[in-house]
Amino acid sequence: MVSVAKAERMRDGTAVAPSVAARHACRNGMASTTAGVANGYVQGNLAILPEKFASAFHRFCQLNPKPCPIIGMSDVGDPRIPGLGLDLDIRTDIPRYRVWKDGEVVEEPTDIMAQWRDDLVAFVIGCSFSFEEALLADDIPIRHIEQGVRVPMYRTNIACASAGPFAGPMVVSMRPLKPADAIRAVQITSRFPSVHGAPVHLGLPQSIGIADIAKPDYGDPVSIEPDEIPVFWACGVTPQAVIAAAKVPFAITHAPGLMLVTDLKNKQLAVL
Amino acid sequence: MVSVAKAERMRDGTAVAPSVAARHACRNGMASTTAGVANGYVQGNLAILPEKFASAFHRFCQLNPKPCPIIGMSDVGDPRIPGLGLDLDIRTDIPRYRVWKDGEVVEEPTDIMAQWRDDLVAFVIGCSFSFEEALLADDIPIRHIEQGVRVPMYRTNIACASAGPFAGPMVVSMRPLKPADAIRAVQITSRFPSVHGAPVHLGLPQSIGIADIAKPDYGDPVSIEPDEIPVFWACGVTPQAVIAAAKVPFAITHAPGLMLVTDLKNKQLAVL
Repeated sequence: MVSVAKAERMRDGTAVAPSVAARHACRNGMASTTAGVANGYVQGNLAILPEKFASAFHRFCQLNPKPCPIIGMSDVGDPRIPGLGLDLDIRTDIPRYRVWKDGEVVEEPTDIMAQWRDDLVAFVIGCSFSFEEALLADDIPIRHIEQGVRVPMYRTNIACASAGPFAGPMVVSMRPLKPADAIRAVQITSRFPSVHGAPVHLGLPQSIGIADIAKPDYGDPVSIEPDEIPVFWACGVTPQAVIAAAKVPFAITHAPGLMLVTDLKNKQLAVL
Repeated sequence: MVSVAKAERMRDGTAVAPSVAARHACRNGMASTTAGVANGYVQGNLAILPEKFASAFHRFCQLNPKPCPIIGMSDVGDPRIPGLGLDLDIRTDIPRYRVWKDGEVVEEPTDIMAQWRDDLVAFVIGCSFSFEEALLADDIPIRHIEQGVRVPMYRTNIACASAGPFAGPMVVSMRPLKPADAIRAVQITSRFPSVHGAPVHLGLPQSIGIADIAKPDYGDPVSIEPDEIPVFWACGVTPQAVIAAAKVPFAITHAPGLMLVTDLKNKQLAVL
């Protein structure tokens, strides 16, 4: 809340906060990845559902907080989420959206003014960008960032708790780390439960149903050196995969990697 | 300090605290392992050195806090350590001692009244029993306890920082854990820096110079299941190994597994 107020004060002058500037750019047509945009500010995954399905989805998130940590939520039919940014409009402030019908992506618009309805509820879910900032600040190298590719993600055999039509396996992201860095990464990410928190697994991919670590189900493969172990975090792709599997008649998400930039600061998410 | 006062109050009545009772038993000839004795109370490793070597050993511990966390220390020539127990006498209150001359064990007495000198300094160093209690309380199984053997320990290629004659590799203890338990164990033991704290390594024994995990350098081997990874903590055997390697003319330690029982509570060591 502090950062939101600060951003507003800055907008009264000549400068705006980087997060506000990022959302303004989206309103003006920016349609590229938000990786590296407005460093220090929390970015979020988006899921929009009709009220008819929203309470079941909300229960799904409640029951599966590691892959689906809710950091913001709109009222029914209201495109604003003031807790994440006073001027935020969820219909315009994301670079690119995915519109889903019956489990299939039917279009990828840069705004959803035409698709918005009075019965829609928007959920914003924490994203690994926040904890990656904390890892990098601790000098822990992150392979997919070094290699300039998307983080590798995998479907696992870890079943999410189901709620209504929403069910399916947890999707995890993987970062190869030296063991001492993996231990430090557990400590660091444990401080950030609202952005997936501590890893869910490390070291034995086959134990969680990953047959071939070189073939991620989403994102890009990265190399794992002989002195590294794979470390797995619950991933915000999980809710998107679950929405697709549920084949709900209508839903909207962000396009992968093109996230909502909020006025919250990553540091503000630390519980200790 | 709270627990010490409480123990003293109890001694004024008919009962004494279990830790006080354990030390009294030692004074009266108990010479068996302290594993499982006075549950809830901190146990410690002992190292006694002549003043001539004590400051270098103190520096060694300061520089290597993970294997050598000091939880108590005597004044020169004073056998008392009131911070660990008001009535504690370091000459009698450990079940069995090892007396070292020039790097060799020359005797293993049950008290050191005859060996005590005016120039000796006693160091008490944190022990894994404390964090094992916290792991067990969290329902994390510990293999060597289940199997009723000593924890397996290994010399590593992790060099300790040296101080005067004291130098050598870190010795680690190993507990096989399922990956999710290993992550939880990192969180739990991070709260206990004065008893070795977070693991120093996990998953890749060869990376820290362990050629054969089935052949520990100290303690007993334990089985590692296919769905488990080995997790390594810095070990209080390190200072004993370093004292042996330094071949100092005179030193006294505890006999392995036969520790000093203190009036501190394990819970009091948690930093969070």
